Amino acid sequence: MTLPASSRVNLERFWQTIERSAEIGKGREGGLSRLALSDADKEIRDIFVAWCREDGLTVSVDQVGNIFGRREGQDNSLPPVLVGSHLDTQANGGRFDGIVGVLGALETIRTLNDLGHVTRRPIEIVNWTNEEGARFSPPMLASGCFAGTYPLDWTHTRPSDDGATFGAELRRIGYLGAAPVGGRELDAYFELHIEQGPVLDAEKVQVGVVTHAYTSYGFLAEFKGETAHAGPCAMELRRNALIAAARLLVTVDDLGWDYAATGGKSTGARLAAWPNKAGIISDWAQAICDVRHDDPRAAAVMAERVRRAVGEAAARAGCTAEILDSWNWGGAIFDPEMVSDIRRQAAALGYTHRDLPSQAGHDAYFLARICPTAMIFTPCRNGITHNNNELATREDVEPGLNVLLHSVVARADRQDSH
Amino acid sequence: MTLPASSRVNLERFWQTIERSAEIGKGREGGLSRLALSDADKEIRDIFVAWCREDGLTVSVDQVGNIFGRREGQDNSLPPVLVGSHLDTQANGGRFDGIVGVLGALETIRTLNDLGHVTRRPIEIVNWTNEEGARFSPPMLASGCFAGTYPLDWTHTRPSDDGATFGAELRRIGYLGAAPVGGRELDAYFELHIEQGPVLDAEKVQVGVVTHAYTSYGFLAEFKGETAHAGPCAMELRRNALIAAARLLVTVDDLGWDYAATGGKSTGARLAAWPNKAGIISDWAQAICDVRHDDPRAAAVMAERVRRAVGEAAARAGCTAEILDSWNWGGAIFDPEMVSDIRRQAAALGYTHRDLPSQAGHDAYFLARICPTAMIFTPCRNGITHNNNELATREDVEPGLNVLLHSVVARADRQDSH
Repeated sequence: MTLPASSRVNLERFWQTIERSAEIGKGREGGLSRLALSDADKEIRDIFVAWCREDGLTVSVDQVGNIFGRREGQDNSLPPVLVGSHLDTQANGGRFDGIVGVLGALETIRTLNDLGHVTRRPIEIVNWTNEEGARFSPPMLASGCFAGTYPLDWTHTRPSDDGATFGAELRRIGYLGAAPVGGRELDAYFELHIEQGPVLDAEKVQVGVVTHAYTSYGFLAEFKGETAHAGPCAMELRRNALIAAARLLVTVDDLGWDYAATGGKSTGARLAAWPNKAGIISDWAQAICDVRHDDPRAAAVMAERVRRAVGEAAARAGCTAEILDSWNWGGAIFDPEMVSDIRRQAAALGYTHRDLPSQAGHDAYFLARICPTAMIFTPCRNGITHNNNELATREDVEPGLNVLLHSVVARADRQDSH
Repeated sequence: MTLPASSRVNLERFWQTIERSAEIGKGREGGLSRLALSDADKEIRDIFVAWCREDGLTVSVDQVGNIFGRREGQDNSLPPVLVGSHLDTQANGGRFDGIVGVLGALETIRTLNDLGHVTRRPIEIVNWTNEEGARFSPPMLASGCFAGTYPLDWTHTRPSDDGATFGAELRRIGYLGAAPVGGRELDAYFELHIEQGPVLDAEKVQVGVVTHAYTSYGFLAEFKGETAHAGPCAMELRRNALIAAARLLVTVDDLGWDYAATGGKSTGARLAAWPNKAGIISDWAQAICDVRHDDPRAAAVMAERVRRAVGEAAARAGCTAEILDSWNWGGAIFDPEMVSDIRRQAAALGYTHRDLPSQAGHDAYFLARICPTAMIFTPCRNGITHNNNELATREDVEPGLNVLLHSVVARADRQDSH
């Protein structure tokens, strides 16, 4: 009743789902712009749900729009093994980021159906809502809510630039489900993802065994000043919130350079101001920024520096400041046993593989707070991502898909009592 | 046939027009948000046109929406004396900025009608379109076009944040007039305006005789980079256009502080970026900034520093940069004879008065390029402007209104051949 070692996914079938997905929410040439809870997101969700049902899965949608497709096991009293990622993209996103993980999970199910293999534990596949944070801040909002980090009410009231809240948009596109958010036992969570970095592609290594995550801290800071004329108002009377926000982002950028030699990074990601017009001083601004480092202590120092910079930037511009929201993740969060098994499966399948950390944020980071979790990376060309030129070929993803298949089934079939 | 020295405007009547205007396009408490070519702008324009007609003026609208109301003189072969300002406001604007000048011009006409005084030269009053630049950049767009600085086609294609162009919005609200833009001889231009600075209010002086203008340089800079993931992308590979724009605005702000001791100012007024979202590096940004100084040489040095900063900020962030648009004005632009006469009229009327420069931008700056021009300032409380707390009382504006009346009539009635 074990999965034959020779079992492989159906690469052509998987690729057809990637190509179908790539038709929905097209962005710049070759890329996608499929923002969370947009009409395009609804369209790909509807297709994903239809695929799940065709493949015999029981679909449920929770109250933050996460979509689960469940395949029963031999012992359905056991907690399920969960596998997935996200189908939303950035405004200038690629065709693979997140999507490979959701459709890879679907391909695992389809392969098991082909083989008639019923695992000991149930398997669920999942599409998490708003992983990117490109429409609603923070990123990984719905997996964070699932893991109990973000309260449900707070999640529903997150605003978008277009004025609509997360909750209202869930309802509008018909994905405000009835299922409770989280609060149930999971055996494990697997996430397959493109690396979003250059290492595997540069070294021509087929599979990335993700050992841990860069420690990341993100911040949403708000500055308040006062409108005045851009002309006569004396410098010492100015309270320009736009300048406060710009000063914060410049300091944050400098900080990334300070830590660049050891692989540290920082990003000034967003600046919004009001009125933000010629001739007038803005009295309101918000900035979103983050810092990341492989060394958790270094990341903590960077984060503290950002917190201090918020106050300094505000003071310099005569404004008040508040950190409205902050988030952090990363570290040694993945399950050592699962990581070892992924490494073993890659070797058994004859793929070249290497250990590496994850630098981007992933839903897996929140899942790791509530169940044993691991990630598998596939190569992506030159590490280009969050860009319409993001590229992974079917040959790039095939090894990762097969490692996912065997790792998930090994986990779901194992005989220990956990 | 000279105007009696005892002639005064009807302050109550003038104030009623201010109060009527203050009902249209209300913004924050006590203020206005009457952006150029918005529905509210159309509403105040319609009322202004109706008032002009009621007072016997011949109304014409030119191809950039400037509204002229003409009162014939004794010799209509002579070029007219033009008097006016603007009725549009900033997003957080006051009830007086610009409006006092247009409705003050109207009150001059009404007073002449009361007195049955027909001037030698015709008088025209004017409302200039989009003085503020709060919806379409640059500011003083339509007076700049009238003065021949901005080509008509270029003016019509200026975009707004909401996507509509200047030309399309003119047509939408019914103010794409038939009259040619400029190209005709003017005897002189007068503009009455609140000071938008603290000097008159602090010194309890009733009338400001504007001797010259701060030299100002404005810039619209565009930066181009490349989208990438905010996480894994190494610092040295980042091309973050948002950071380039933020660096420019911080440098510009520092520059204002460098010159603050001598009254210099700088403003980072606007920053727009795309996608401008968490998790992704922005590949496009625009910034609007300006520098001002009473000393034209100092202002020129500041402007050169901004031009250099555009390239430096771009290089530091791995981006390319272009100054898409720039504008400058100021200096010894006002007509010495008109300035002297305003000073003389203020003294003859028994008002306290003082010479002072103008620091804000005004339509008068462009008119000064094509005809003798002068400005009169009235006090405004604490110099607060471009803010809903902008305040001028009827007592504050009465002296300026009477100086305007007598100055305009003296100019229009003078016997020399010009």
